[in-house]
Amino acid sequence: GGQSYHQPWERSVDFPVSVVLPAGGTGERTGLQTPKQFCSFLGRPLISYTIQSFERVSWIQSIVVVVAKENMDLMTDIIQRFQHRKVRVVPGGSTRHRSICNGVLALGGQGEEEERLPADKPKVVIIHDAVRPFVEEDFLYKIAMAAKEQGAAGAIRPLVSTVIATTSEGYLDHSLERARYRASEMPQGFTYDVIYQAYQRCTESDFDFGTECLHLALQYCGTNAKLIEGPPTLWKVTYKRDLAAAESIIKETLSRSACVITGGSAGAVTLADALQKAAGALDMELDVVPDLKGDNGRYLLKEWNFIQVSVNHSSLSEVESMLKDLEAANRALLHPLVVIWVHLSGSDELSVSGRTPEPAAIADVASAAKLRNILLYGIQLHQSKDTERWERSVLRVAEITSALIRERSPALVGQLLQA
Amino acid sequence: GGQSYHQPWERSVDFPVSVVLPAGGTGERTGLQTPKQFCSFLGRPLISYTIQSFERVSWIQSIVVVVAKENMDLMTDIIQRFQHRKVRVVPGGSTRHRSICNGVLALGGQGEEEERLPADKPKVVIIHDAVRPFVEEDFLYKIAMAAKEQGAAGAIRPLVSTVIATTSEGYLDHSLERARYRASEMPQGFTYDVIYQAYQRCTESDFDFGTECLHLALQYCGTNAKLIEGPPTLWKVTYKRDLAAAESIIKETLSRSACVITGGSAGAVTLADALQKAAGALDMELDVVPDLKGDNGRYLLKEWNFIQVSVNHSSLSEVESMLKDLEAANRALLHPLVVIWVHLSGSDELSVSGRTPEPAAIADVASAAKLRNILLYGIQLHQSKDTERWERSVLRVAEITSALIRERSPALVGQLLQA
Ligand SMILES: [Mg+2]
Ligand SMILES: [Mg+2]
Repeated sequence: GGQSYHQPWERSVDFPVSVVLPAGGTGERTGLQTPKQFCSFLGRPLISYTIQSFERVSWIQSIVVVVAKENMDLMTDIIQRFQHRKVRVVPGGSTRHRSICNGVLALGGQGEEEERLPADKPKVVIIHDAVRPFVEEDFLYKIAMAAKEQGAAGAIRPLVSTVIATTSEGYLDHSLERARYRASEMPQGFTYDVIYQAYQRCTESDFDFGTECLHLALQYCGTNAKLIEGPPTLWKVTYKRDLAAAESIIKETLSRSACVITGGSAGAVTLADALQKAAGALDMELDVVPDLKGDNGRYLLKEWNFIQVSVNHSSLSEVESMLKDLEAANRALLHPLVVIWVHLSGSDELSVSGRTPEPAAIADVASAAKLRNILLYGIQLHQSKDTERWERSVLRVAEITSALIRERSPALVGQLLQA
Repeated sequence: GGQSYHQPWERSVDFPVSVVLPAGGTGERTGLQTPKQFCSFLGRPLISYTIQSFERVSWIQSIVVVVAKENMDLMTDIIQRFQHRKVRVVPGGSTRHRSICNGVLALGGQGEEEERLPADKPKVVIIHDAVRPFVEEDFLYKIAMAAKEQGAAGAIRPLVSTVIATTSEGYLDHSLERARYRASEMPQGFTYDVIYQAYQRCTESDFDFGTECLHLALQYCGTNAKLIEGPPTLWKVTYKRDLAAAESIIKETLSRSACVITGGSAGAVTLADALQKAAGALDMELDVVPDLKGDNGRYLLKEWNFIQVSVNHSSLSEVESMLKDLEAANRALLHPLVVIWVHLSGSDELSVSGRTPEPAAIADVASAAKLRNILLYGIQLHQSKDTERWERSVLRVAEITSALIRERSPALVGQLLQA
């Protein structure tokens, strides 16, 4: 859903742009043992989300991830597991600047033998943090264009707190006039020549204690960086709570819509239409289709949630066939897919064998699907001629569906819930 | 639990301390329509969590919440609904400083008639933001003591980003030396006399455009504020993502432990012990007790999650009696309580009537409990003499229990899940 862009500006980036992603941090501030760029949510490490943000930008030609030597294998494994393309891993240095410098040299074909890239020295290098996963194409475009024109460009944000100077004894000295200052954020962009020269000319002390690439560009190349106000989505995952925030953003992105497959029977279509209305009131958009064939196959490529409606027959064959299609589309690689089987049984017939879903059957199919990152749940409801009761049931299905899709809980797969 | 402290320092605050909580913000930055202090998670608005953080501190005598006139009724309703004590609501002014000043005057018995408090002018006034709900007693203590000694004190935090000065054309001018500067945060504390005089003496321009109370204290009272490094828990809920982060922190606090009630039968105790072990591996601590009578009644006052184990009988009477006890303890007022009914049925007897739980029965009890903010779920498992199968079932119960407790999903109450 909405993760690949076809914007008019794509064609206007007519020079090579590559990315250096320093990911050597130790994550002390998260309160977690794992460095935060390697912490996972929804089954995927943070750094993979960040890589994906760059990978989906067509005009970015390569990404160099710089990690501490002890994390090279972990990083290589992540790249294989999530099938990242365009990415090379380079070992970091002892400080942030040494790591970024290693990445820049690797882009120029000047790294150590093993990490040398094909000779495609970029015109512009974008430097970003591995822990800012939500950077967007339009802002990268602004940074790349300004970097090409000015030599250097960087993201800024308004200060969130008043900045104060303290006396050596820990008392208030004075507060800064907030309007004159900005927080320097990531991404930053440089022409290759500027960032390369800056690192060639800077001192060991700069390498060890410097914090700002923009500052090195100014000091050693006389390049005044263009500062561009960035959106709040540039925020940095710093604390454990930020991982929860990042997870909630991804979950919300994945939960906005679902595709309902009816099989075409009149009863299923009626239910699907009622569900669509009820889900709309819960801010979830449902698209109703008879199947995923032909043109409807596009849902396999863009949707994260599928609802199979079955009326009066308890066979899981339709669900199993959908699971096969989803696997073939290789969708669950990046995010867990949700499949919900909604089973409507007639109110009159009491538990006619073969018409009531068998809990063990759905549990087995769900266990197998879970291994492929597809979360399968069942919801059962009963037909009713009492309009009020029927509407209440449909609303319950919509509420349960919405909760299952939003929470994406692996522990609850295979359950047959009652609406 | 863990929300009331009995620390040695309690006795050492021997002067009156009150709090002013400006809550007039419009929440433009959250991307939400409701001002963020009134946004809810887990059924309660953010500001109520913040009020609770102060209310549970024994040495804080009163809290004045300053809100925009149009939100007075909403705020009064929140105070009644969550049974806040110690709290008065005062209408805000047109700027943050005018609002804080109104709060200070109300504390001194100098507000308008209606918002006048009993004559208990505090020695120290703590000013805090309504959107920083996680402030802790030990830090409030530090601020109160330093304010009393120095006249003014404020929380500081290290800068998260490099601060840069920009040229008028939007280029980098210079970056600040990070070590010399700090972010000024909340809470801040003042002796009543200092903050009162500062507002008496300051100009209209200060009222309209000033940002820092600390600065007014310095300028108009010659009081150099003591700056105290605060913990990361002082963070401010600013964006929509921060609400998700706050919710995740509360959910984690509520999910660390649960109380298992066995009824004392050997089969239930065996299951409870096995569950305890499995839950331990999932980082959840279970306390196993036969009932909630006598000394075990303490769990009613400190635990947020209860698991009733039933063996071979499907009556909900034990659960219903527990729900009654929980209601009497008035616990669900602040956070939703979770009650999980774990039903173990023998493997030999096939669906003996009266021994298999009736889904409709648990759904009805759950619907009623939900109205009282108690979330009831059921989990069914079958006895097995196959050790491996039995252990797998117990692990499933633990996983489902852990997920239900962590997610606290209202949409899934009343479901009878299969382990
Ligand atoms: Mg830098
Ligand atoms: Mg202030």
